[in-house]
Amino acid sequence: METCGASPLRPRERIIKTARDLFRKHGIRGVGVDTIAEQAGTNKMTLYRHFGSKDDLIIACLQDFANDAEAFWQSIEMSHPDSPMAQIHEWVRIVSECALDDLRGCDMANAAVELAEDAHPARHVIEEFKMAQRNRLAQLCRDAGIEKADQLADTLCLLIEGARVNMQSVGLEGPGARFISLAEDVIAAFAREKPERKPATLHRHASAKIKGRGQLHAPLPAANRA
Amino acid sequence: METCGASPLRPRERIIKTARDLFRKHGIRGVGVDTIAEQAGTNKMTLYRHFGSKDDLIIACLQDFANDAEAFWQSIEMSHPDSPMAQIHEWVRIVSECALDDLRGCDMANAAVELAEDAHPARHVIEEFKMAQRNRLAQLCRDAGIEKADQLADTLCLLIEGARVNMQSVGLEGPGARFISLAEDVIAAFAREKPERKPATLHRHASAKIKGRGQLHAPLPAANRA
Repeated sequence: METCGASPLRPRERIIKTARDLFRKHGIRGVGVDTIAEQAGTNKMTLYRHFGSKDDLIIACLQDFANDAEAFWQSIEMSHPDSPMAQIHEWVRIVSECALDDLRGCDMANAAVELAEDAHPARHVIEEFKMAQRNRLAQLCRDAGIEKADQLADTLCLLIEGARVNMQSVGLEGPGARFISLAEDVIAAFAREKPERKPATLHRHASAKIKGRGQLHAPLPAANRA
Repeated sequence: METCGASPLRPRERIIKTARDLFRKHGIRGVGVDTIAEQAGTNKMTLYRHFGSKDDLIIACLQDFANDAEAFWQSIEMSHPDSPMAQIHEWVRIVSECALDDLRGCDMANAAVELAEDAHPARHVIEEFKMAQRNRLAQLCRDAGIEKADQLADTLCLLIEGARVNMQSVGLEGPGARFISLAEDVIAAFAREKPERKPATLHRHASAKIKGRGQLHAPLPAANRA
C-alpha cells in the first residue's frame, strides 16, 4: 500500500508519507518529530503548522492508511464484480501478499500496541477502522451466501491479524507465513455448509459464486457443486 | 500469569516484576529505567548492577514471561494427564481467559512490535518462545490423534495471536472476544477428520475427509472428547 516516492508531494502529504515509513521501520515511539521533519525535507515549524502535535500526525497517518484500505477494497470489488466468493479469495490473496511483502505487520494493530493508553486520541480511529474492515468482510461473506458469514469473517480476521503479528515474532518460519492455505481451508469448510438448505432459486445464484473459488484444498462433494 | 505483589521479593525479582507491569501498561518504550527503579523501591544504580542495560532488563522480563508459560503448560498437562484432546480444550480455555483478563495482549508479541530493529537482542528470545509454543501445541495435537496436527496448531496459534492483538484495537466488541467459540469450531472440524479413516484405504480416507469438513459446527463425537 505504499505510494511511489518520486512524485512531488506537497509538504503535508510528504510529512505523512515520511512519518508512515519511519513509524513502520522504528515504531511510533521510536521516532521523533525532528527526524520526521528532517527526512521529509522540511522543518519542525512547518510540521507543527500542519499538525498541532505528534498525536495529530499519528492520527493523520492512520487515516491515510485507512484511505489506502478503501482503495484495496475497491480493487477487490473490481477484480470479480459478479462473484463475492471470488472476492473473498482475492481478499485472502491480497492481504497475504501485503503481509509477506513487509513483515512489520498492520499499521493500525501496531499503533494499538504502542499507544497503550485507553484515552489516546488515535484509539477511536483504530477501533473504527478495525470494526469496519471486519464488517465489510462479513458482508462479503453474506453476499457469497455463506451460512455463518459472521463467524467466517471473525475467523479470517483473527487469522490475518494473527499472521501479521506472528511474522513480526518469527518471520517466515512460523504459521503466519502459511496464512493463505490455512485461510483457504477455513473458507472451504464454511462454504461447504451452505448449499443443501437453499431453495432452488437461490441455488443457481450460489453455484455461480462457487465457480469463482479457485484452488481449494479438497474437492467439493458433487452435490455441493450443483 | 501475574504473581502476588505481597511477597517480599529480592531486588532483582522486584525490578523484573515492576518492569513487566510497567511495560504492559505503558509499552516497553513508554517507560524509562528511572521510573522502573523508583516504582520497584530501589535506585538506578542497583538496577544497572543487576541488568547492564535496559535491553538486558527487557530480555530478563521476557525470560520471566517464558517461565510463566512453562508453568502454564504444566498445569494443562496435570489438568487432564490421560487425554491430550482434553488438554487442547483446556489450552483454549486458559489462553482465552488470559486474553480476556488483560486486553493488553501477549508480552512477547507486543515486544516484537515495539522492538522493530532486526538486530535487537530480545528478538531471538521472542522467536524461540513463539516457535516453542507452536511446536508444543502441534505435539499435543499429534498426541490427540489429529490427522493434520501441524495445520490445527498453526490455525489455533494464529487465532489466539489475532485475538490478542485484535482486542487491543477494538476491545471486547470485536472477533477477538469470540476466540473461544471460533477455536472450538476449528478443533471440532479437524477432530472429525480422524476416526472414519481407519483402516485406511485411499478411497475411504478421501471420503472421510470430505465428510469431516461438511459439518463444522456440529458437536464433537463422544469418541473425540476422550
